[in-house]
Amino acid sequence: MPIADQGQLLIRNIYLSVDPAQRGWAADVANYSEPAALGSPMRALAVGVVLTARAEGFSEGDFVYGFFGWQDYAAVDPSAVLHRCRQDLPLDAFASLCGINGVTAWLALTQLGRPKAGDTLLVSTAAGSVGSFVGQIGASLGCHTIGLTGTDAKVAQCRESFGYDTAINYRTADLDAEIARAAPDGVSVYYDNTGGAILDTALRRMAIGGRIVQCGTAAVQSWAPQPTGPRNEREIMTRRLVWSGFVIFDHGDEYADACDALAALLADGKLTYATDIKVGIEAAPAAISDLYAGKNTGKSLIYIG
Amino acid sequence: MPIADQGQLLIRNIYLSVDPAQRGWAADVANYSEPAALGSPMRALAVGVVLTARAEGFSEGDFVYGFFGWQDYAAVDPSAVLHRCRQDLPLDAFASLCGINGVTAWLALTQLGRPKAGDTLLVSTAAGSVGSFVGQIGASLGCHTIGLTGTDAKVAQCRESFGYDTAINYRTADLDAEIARAAPDGVSVYYDNTGGAILDTALRRMAIGGRIVQCGTAAVQSWAPQPTGPRNEREIMTRRLVWSGFVIFDHGDEYADACDALAALLADGKLTYATDIKVGIEAAPAAISDLYAGKNTGKSLIYIG
Repeated sequence: MPIADQGQLLIRNIYLSVDPAQRGWAADVANYSEPAALGSPMRALAVGVVLTARAEGFSEGDFVYGFFGWQDYAAVDPSAVLHRCRQDLPLDAFASLCGINGVTAWLALTQLGRPKAGDTLLVSTAAGSVGSFVGQIGASLGCHTIGLTGTDAKVAQCRESFGYDTAINYRTADLDAEIARAAPDGVSVYYDNTGGAILDTALRRMAIGGRIVQCGTAAVQSWAPQPTGPRNEREIMTRRLVWSGFVIFDHGDEYADACDALAALLADGKLTYATDIKVGIEAAPAAISDLYAGKNTGKSLIYIG
Repeated sequence: MPIADQGQLLIRNIYLSVDPAQRGWAADVANYSEPAALGSPMRALAVGVVLTARAEGFSEGDFVYGFFGWQDYAAVDPSAVLHRCRQDLPLDAFASLCGINGVTAWLALTQLGRPKAGDTLLVSTAAGSVGSFVGQIGASLGCHTIGLTGTDAKVAQCRESFGYDTAINYRTADLDAEIARAAPDGVSVYYDNTGGAILDTALRRMAIGGRIVQCGTAAVQSWAPQPTGPRNEREIMTRRLVWSGFVIFDHGDEYADACDALAALLADGKLTYATDIKVGIEAAPAAISDLYAGKNTGKSLIYIG
């Protein structure tokens, strides 16, 4: 067990988070985060309880969410803590609904997408850990919601669990024709987690004044050599689009308010969340490959409490 | 001479405007404006005086700026009028400084570019009818300004007439290296009038949180077949960019305020404007080809008063 230095916290992890971004952190290329160092525990989000509080503002027994790694115990600086957990939600919610997935969905959609009632909201990876929240939040704001996903089972999940008005299997459908049919007046807000060919199609179905939120690029396998695609500057100008990028790590100060907003939607019955929980730290590496194989049925977590 | 119907204005044109957009209006392809109809006078902006006012709110002798065509007289609905001319500026200013070029520069830069003191502002077609105002407005707001242009003579004009801190000949320089040298902390605002390879380079020199204003695509000769370029979604996300399109015709309600702001900058000595005036309507067609050959030395106008 590590020791908390003065100014640090000793944390016992309870839920370890399994996230697509970890594949990037394990690679030897920096993007907006440095790569995880060889020989160190895998960088990971987790929910844990404070065993020793040697930092101001924290107490023994506080439940916290942050970058505590795939390990049983972590001695961390308070800057590793993203969020202090409220007492009125189950603990797994802090790594899903109020984890970076839900908070990303809330902040990026409301701040960059700026949806209003009557807008048409299109979401890629609509059944995913971010997209499933985006669709539900959009519906709660009065949007007509269209989800794009890659299997018929997820199409059904989009409609039955995440309340999408329309869900499209982009692998089997004529995507352009189906978007045009579902959004006859164009797409007001496109929340994009994929990039690539799906983005190329969606961008050309945007309404005048539409907003594109770039939250992920899961469909582009490699950025070296530089991949190419259709030029978009004319579409951006003539459609008066606003295309914005979002990275959650800029938004620490807004985290608690976003969690409160999501918890209120949950309490009002306007939002559900699903977790896919495996037990024991030895289940963690396989859970990452399951994630990329699309085998999880909710936010992937490892319980080690 | 045409006759103004009830609800219309009869206008005597004084200055005819010569604009790059007219090449698009004369083509048989709609973009954000319908093509000009065969057999009708060439669609054009002009400054004129009201001879007969049969529409509410207008009087004989009012000076007005709007879509009055390349012709001596025009009978138009009031919706053709973009702006009622103030009395304290020379008339040619209403087709240049307070024409759509200056007003576009003001509105697009301030609303979409959102520059603040200390920002680095990069402008393409920096000596052009819009870019020359963008650079001066940016400097008046305390930005470090970098202009991109295509001849050494225009590089000198950018520095000497339009107050750019740095000006780069994109045809002869190592553009990426020169932008990197002039903007060591990245570009805060890129005001783009060209698209194409210049945009591709500039986008990869943006600072975190930078804004790109898409105001033109002059460098892309044809959009059919669809041209390709490097994929930008990852840059937009990881740099947290905001890339927005601007079309002046959305902003009629803001026109008068923008003109007041520009006139105030002129009065304070923070802005100059240049007009290149030819005489007689027969000079108009050649003035368009001069424009595309880069032969004009300021906003191209035809005086027919």
